[in-house]
Amino acid sequence: MAVATLGHVELNCPDLDASFRHFHDVIGLELEREEADRYYLRAWGDWHAYTLVLTEADEPGAAHIAFQVEDETDLEEYATRIEASGYDVRWLEPGAEPGQGTAIRFDSPAGQEFELFAEMEWVDVPDDKRSPLKNQPQKRVERGIGVRRIDHVNCYAPNVEECSEWFQEVLDFNLREELVLDGHPTGKWLSVTPIVHEIAFVDDDRHHFNHVAYYLKDATELDRAADILKEHDVHLKGGPGHHGISQARYIYHDEPSGTEVEVFAGGYLIFEPNWQPITWTEEDMPEALYWWGKGRKFSGAHQHSDAFENEPE
Amino acid sequence: MAVATLGHVELNCPDLDASFRHFHDVIGLELEREEADRYYLRAWGDWHAYTLVLTEADEPGAAHIAFQVEDETDLEEYATRIEASGYDVRWLEPGAEPGQGTAIRFDSPAGQEFELFAEMEWVDVPDDKRSPLKNQPQKRVERGIGVRRIDHVNCYAPNVEECSEWFQEVLDFNLREELVLDGHPTGKWLSVTPIVHEIAFVDDDRHHFNHVAYYLKDATELDRAADILKEHDVHLKGGPGHHGISQARYIYHDEPSGTEVEVFAGGYLIFEPNWQPITWTEEDMPEALYWWGKGRKFSGAHQHSDAFENEPE
Amino acid sequence: MAVATLGHVELNCPDLDASFRHFHDVIGLELEREEADRYYLRAWGDWHAYTLVLTEADEPGAAHIAFQVEDETDLEEYATRIEASGYDVRWLEPGAEPGQGTAIRFDSPAGQEFELFAEMEWVDVPDDKRSPLKNQPQKRVERGIGVRRIDHVNCYAPNVEECSEWFQEVLDFNLREELVLDGHPTGKWLSVTPIVHEIAFVDDDRHHFNHVAYYLKDATELDRAADILKEHDVHLKGGPGHHGISQARYIYHDEPSGTEVEVFAGGYLIFEPNWQPITWTEEDMPEALYWWGKGRKFSGAHQHSDAFENEPE
Amino acid sequence: MAVATLGHVELNCPDLDASFRHFHDVIGLELEREEADRYYLRAWGDWHAYTLVLTEADEPGAAHIAFQVEDETDLEEYATRIEASGYDVRWLEPGAEPGQGTAIRFDSPAGQEFELFAEMEWVDVPDDKRSPLKNQPQKRVERGIGVRRIDHVNCYAPNVEECSEWFQEVLDFNLREELVLDGHPTGKWLSVTPIVHEIAFVDDDRHHFNHVAYYLKDATELDRAADILKEHDVHLKGGPGHHGISQARYIYHDEPSGTEVEVFAGGYLIFEPNWQPITWTEEDMPEALYWWGKGRKFSGAHQHSDAFENEPE
Repeated sequence: MAVATLGHVELNCPDLDASFRHFHDVIGLELEREEADRYYLRAWGDWHAYTLVLTEADEPGAAHIAFQVEDETDLEEYATRIEASGYDVRWLEPGAEPGQGTAIRFDSPAGQEFELFAEMEWVDVPDDKRSPLKNQPQKRVERGIGVRRIDHVNCYAPNVEECSEWFQEVLDFNLREELVLDGHPTGKWLSVTPIVHEIAFVDDDRHHFNHVAYYLKDATELDRAADILKEHDVHLKGGPGHHGISQARYIYHDEPSGTEVEVFAGGYLIFEPNWQPITWTEEDMPEALYWWGKGRKFSGAHQHSDAFENEPE
Repeated sequence: MAVATLGHVELNCPDLDASFRHFHDVIGLELEREEADRYYLRAWGDWHAYTLVLTEADEPGAAHIAFQVEDETDLEEYATRIEASGYDVRWLEPGAEPGQGTAIRFDSPAGQEFELFAEMEWVDVPDDKRSPLKNQPQKRVERGIGVRRIDHVNCYAPNVEECSEWFQEVLDFNLREELVLDGHPTGKWLSVTPIVHEIAFVDDDRHHFNHVAYYLKDATELDRAADILKEHDVHLKGGPGHHGISQARYIYHDEPSGTEVEVFAGGYLIFEPNWQPITWTEEDMPEALYWWGKGRKFSGAHQHSDAFENEPE
Repeated sequence: MAVATLGHVELNCPDLDASFRHFHDVIGLELEREEADRYYLRAWGDWHAYTLVLTEADEPGAAHIAFQVEDETDLEEYATRIEASGYDVRWLEPGAEPGQGTAIRFDSPAGQEFELFAEMEWVDVPDDKRSPLKNQPQKRVERGIGVRRIDHVNCYAPNVEECSEWFQEVLDFNLREELVLDGHPTGKWLSVTPIVHEIAFVDDDRHHFNHVAYYLKDATELDRAADILKEHDVHLKGGPGHHGISQARYIYHDEPSGTEVEVFAGGYLIFEPNWQPITWTEEDMPEALYWWGKGRKFSGAHQHSDAFENEPE
Repeated sequence: MAVATLGHVELNCPDLDASFRHFHDVIGLELEREEADRYYLRAWGDWHAYTLVLTEADEPGAAHIAFQVEDETDLEEYATRIEASGYDVRWLEPGAEPGQGTAIRFDSPAGQEFELFAEMEWVDVPDDKRSPLKNQPQKRVERGIGVRRIDHVNCYAPNVEECSEWFQEVLDFNLREELVLDGHPTGKWLSVTPIVHEIAFVDDDRHHFNHVAYYLKDATELDRAADILKEHDVHLKGGPGHHGISQARYIYHDEPSGTEVEVFAGGYLIFEPNWQPITWTEEDMPEALYWWGKGRKFSGAHQHSDAFENEPE
């Protein structure tokens, strides 16, 4: 029994059409399904029928974040654990989301809605999009950046430590790296696979969604992504650069509805079964978030440490 | 209980000193320990005390291939399974290999010696080699290619199907991709993590070790690796190129004692819990092994299919 | 007075429409003008109104190859020199080719038609294609490979030495590198700028056009170009690789009408005023044409050396 | 008659030994000659016997900046022009600098000492450093970044317009791009070859040397250069990034004696004989200096425009 991977993210979009155009034209996602107030998209390397849902809403943020579990029977066990930890579980019928089997929904300790599901239809691409690479869902997308696959989410939370422990204890995530500033837990990076994080929590005095990240084919394509964003008049909030934590290459920007998006590549993998979380402190700040490259100012109101408030050098 | 990751490989070296110089000077591995007829080396991104052992011997090949299990108690369970499958298990005392805990040794269905261990000391680098990146064992090595970490092994075997099934059933490996030529299983790629393979078996009429692969920091560094190899007078048997199977970038060469070495980067990750093995056949050969780039002729005597004998186009 | 740069190439296209689709969709050139049996295209980084003309014809090859001279008055001087060397000059009125001033046409010693012109309109891109980069003619093209600019031409000739000397003496080209196999001049690379060649001549027993090359933004984009070509079902005749001569990265393929196209990047620049041509011989063949990467077989019937006939290793 | 290329730069070094160690160990230059208070170095792709001279001195800066002319006879003509423009010329005997022929020295309109020479010995590398690439002076340097060749210098000046015009009129440089803020010429980029600049002048209220730039093999190697600098505890003042002006990739840092060094790659080439200088103004500042990536604060006291004083976004 395990959480296997990040499945999809549903973003609330005050400007739905502009957000769709951005993710389709600039990020290079494929439109897989369209409803009245909703778009379903995925990257060319995503096997699932969709990995991003854009939904009309008054405020930006994540409507829900969905992880896939290994097996349908895992849902009951995780539901039991979630309820035992004091949180409600809502069951979704198969098809409540298109192509998806039974699912459960629940709020995280920071109030963010999450979902677990076991079954999701895989994409069925038309013949002219099939790649001779049989281990690739379809040909690369030439439009815009052409990101490869969904990678991770990052959530602001006022209770980073509580969120991290809850995801470890209830959902079997592994704590991989953490940022502790002036003794306060400021950031936590957790994963269920060898990548450093499918989810991170970053200190802020209220809950709000930070960003969703899509991975490029590889690090050779980061510079082209920066060109493409700039030529589409997108402001680069941070990057191109190289994180310390996760060691990944990154570019940050905001999509038109106001949600931050990270274009991601590189990084390192954790294969060691006895991995001990890496702890970074205020002394490591010059390297922790931005090993090199343009950092970004944080929009959140970080409560516990001035070290984090400082602009990146 | 699980096999967690590839730990190390011990190579037999008819020309031990030349092999050491090659792995140290050209590949850019660090010398961690030296005995009378043996060198212990690792890449700058390897946490284990060593990932490559070079041992004086009459014929090239792998003396043993070691995987790490999650927990010391896993060893007994795997020993039971191995013996139940009809193979002998030899127990090694802690310290039988430097820094390593209790281990078991056994032959694969192709006669290759393998090892499982749970505990291995991590490298303790001197202060001047420490990186400000706390999630990296040490600074990058500037010498030679400067590969990042051990990645996988590839074994020739006359009984590819049997080897693959045995690693799946006895050792819990997952079959990720396979090559079936004229109805005969010709190659199998298996992993215990989201990378496509920590081990592959390729059809040949006798057992012998094919290659060990080290991973670069990322795909941006493959071209420099080709330059460095060429300037050290190393013949590039294949690559630089891009595999179909695994989607990784590669360069092949032989080290001075005659064992093939692959320099590796890129690739894709398998996060899907319900992954079905990708099957490539003779019709896919133009893409299966070499999506693009220079292929290599195989040294083995492949028995079942002419498709495999053909030179890459 | 000087020849300044390669201007444009007119290709004969037995399958005009397929060639247009290839250069537009796969190579990522922009269509700038269309006539009954002719397309005018350019890359996003080309300032000239067009750099490639596709013309309906029975046989593939180059209808003409046009270089730009520094000044209108240079045309008369070069015309005088060309005639003095024994070749006819044909004068073209301004506008004989769209947007072009007065031009002269003449045959090279191998019988290939060449052109010199001084004035050519620059591209006038619509507002939505303008880049914030004022030193770039327009935004990058996302379609297909999206090459940056025209780079060079390569011509087969039975009289390589004569062609090279004529371009040096009559047109002020500089010989940068040469391949001499078994004492016979087999290849000559010449330029009027610090790049190694705007034109090369390669030994063959009859005249025919070898290839036109377009340059990528930079070497980081070569691997993506290979992916794109493969996903458009284009056979890679050679590359990705790294030439010895010119040190450039390359991929070779044939466009649908049968003319070879090279996708080009990297390379070195010659700033030294007292440069002496680099001479490569049969002993250097392992590095001369293909320092690393997949070589290509030559289609020509090379008369003088078996070394050249050999397939690349 | 023409200035052909940038030859070498002599830097004043208050901490000579630390500067030498930096350029040798971190930048990866080769030591070619050593005198009591002076080191002569070059990059692996530099043909000249040296391109950087480090000289003990009280204050950092450039002792002199040397350009190579095409021919010995050019020296007299340029000397005549320089004197006619009101500046003194000092003649140096052959050998006044090691391996160099006759040279002239003179001050620029900003008071910086420059030199013109025609003849300079080429490097004679020992056999074990020779590359199989005959068009490359030696094998790549594996130590540190391993830059390829000298590229350009950048000088602060209080009279940017005057400097630019003088280099155009007296020394035949071409103005390629310029930055005009609030109507004042703030930066000028000039070249004698198709690269955008071998020299730039940037507005400041006093003369001082800004930086010398070395070029990487190509843009694929910029990210590794950033890693190497960071692991040698070098602060990255700016970059990795992509300039608007010149379109080159860059990283800025200070060497131990206080002179700024730029690691450079990419860029575009100007082949057009009728090139008109590109003019960037305050409205273009978001793209002009830093198309993307981390900008750097300028150390100079720019007198004419607040736009320039602003930190990069």
